Amino acid sequence: MERIHTQSVWRFEDNRFLEKEDVIATEYPITVKVNGNELLTIVCTPEFIEDMVVGFLISERIIVKYEDITEIRMDESMGIVHIETTRSFPFFEQLHSKRYITSCCGMSRQGFVFANDVLTAKQMNTKNVILAPEDCFSLMEKMNSNADLFMQTGGVHIAALCDTTAFTLTRMDIGRHNALDKIYGHCLKNAIPVNDKVIVFSGRISSEILLKVAKIGCEIVLSKSAPTELAINLAHELGITAVGFIRENSFNIYSHPDRISGAIQSF
Amino acid sequence: MERIHTQSVWRFEDNRFLEKEDVIATEYPITVKVNGNELLTIVCTPEFIEDMVVGFLISERIIVKYEDITEIRMDESMGIVHIETTRSFPFFEQLHSKRYITSCCGMSRQGFVFANDVLTAKQMNTKNVILAPEDCFSLMEKMNSNADLFMQTGGVHIAALCDTTAFTLTRMDIGRHNALDKIYGHCLKNAIPVNDKVIVFSGRISSEILLKVAKIGCEIVLSKSAPTELAINLAHELGITAVGFIRENSFNIYSHPDRISGAIQSF
Repeated sequence: MERIHTQSVWRFEDNRFLEKEDVIATEYPITVKVNGNELLTIVCTPEFIEDMVVGFLISERIIVKYEDITEIRMDESMGIVHIETTRSFPFFEQLHSKRYITSCCGMSRQGFVFANDVLTAKQMNTKNVILAPEDCFSLMEKMNSNADLFMQTGGVHIAALCDTTAFTLTRMDIGRHNALDKIYGHCLKNAIPVNDKVIVFSGRISSEILLKVAKIGCEIVLSKSAPTELAINLAHELGITAVGFIRENSFNIYSHPDRISGAIQSF
Repeated sequence: MERIHTQSVWRFEDNRFLEKEDVIATEYPITVKVNGNELLTIVCTPEFIEDMVVGFLISERIIVKYEDITEIRMDESMGIVHIETTRSFPFFEQLHSKRYITSCCGMSRQGFVFANDVLTAKQMNTKNVILAPEDCFSLMEKMNSNADLFMQTGGVHIAALCDTTAFTLTRMDIGRHNALDKIYGHCLKNAIPVNDKVIVFSGRISSEILLKVAKIGCEIVLSKSAPTELAINLAHELGITAVGFIRENSFNIYSHPDRISGAIQSF
């Protein structure tokens, strides 16, 4: 497993589209089983996986010293780390993970890791929104100019729901998914239609963020940062147009370029 | 509840220390109870909390439409959102959250939200490491120069364990905590002493990151970004020196400045 790989993207640069090889970060789900019981699934960069699992187990007091582990066995094909411990610890029974913890329904090529997501992520087969390249730039610029004192405290995430030109609402949060949950909840409560809207997000498009966009039911996600490999696979599968690395006068389209005007005709 | 507040920090700038008011992001733990049962605790920015909870519930298929909710009641003093639903849904029973989900032991001033953390976070009463301001700059510069092609894919986190001058090990991950878990696991496995080491981290010092540093057992954490309010409270309580916003020739000390040489004498 490599932590990065290259793949072809549709790049917009100097007012024209071109095909380009791009470097993408791998996002790899690892299910941890302790004494045969499924404990949690951690989505990670696939290197030093055993160290990570050991570090997690001691952080969460599932082990109290390294010697509590009698065996660590990695099943790479299934994405499972099997841990055997000398005894079970009181906290283990009570443990609810702070990260991904849910029944894993296997790692399909499409990247559906969690059973719940298969049911809640919507398949976007429509083409309700078409963005011109200049729309991508102006929407991202609008997001940047919204960055206020709060954003300047560092590392806060901002998400916006918009049409081709204007923001419908903007939410900020220290938690990546919280900003999107705040948008989703507001739209649900106020019956705001979202199928003709676009999500603009300040951070990396991870698989969780991509799934959240699909759950909300938007066709396009724009980001300043890049998607992960798993997010790109999900975007392909779910019919979502993922546009990343939107900078001064360039961006990359990672999936379903037919919702960005001019992209398809260029190839 | 404000999403930011100001507090006094020890600022190093132009080769001297001064006291400065700084803007800090609030990090607020919200426990969600559905029909009386504790579901999970979400750490968030305290605004649009009800929207966030609704967005989370529908994302996770605990509700399938807004009308499934009969009551939303926010108990601000306890940090609890009470949700009543018309009926329980099949997925609710199976739900294991993707985020914080554990027994909440209440929100103390000190910021201990999770029972587990009280047991695993170490109290750092020692002063095994003293850093000069120039050490903070050079360690951060070393981290930046380690940023390779992988980092350039955007948004990847990097964590390092080091002494006053050299890196012992460096780990990168798309997941914030994973990078630190990889360091913790490696040290545990190889019996590497950590009580004379420093953690350098590329991202924001959230309460989770601060707790992880305490669990590993390091006295000092350095970051390019800022800590949250909850992280600062925990750092005070646990005896950890948190240094943030390390830039070209300035940084802020948020807690226990006595491990940065020259800081205390200046006040």
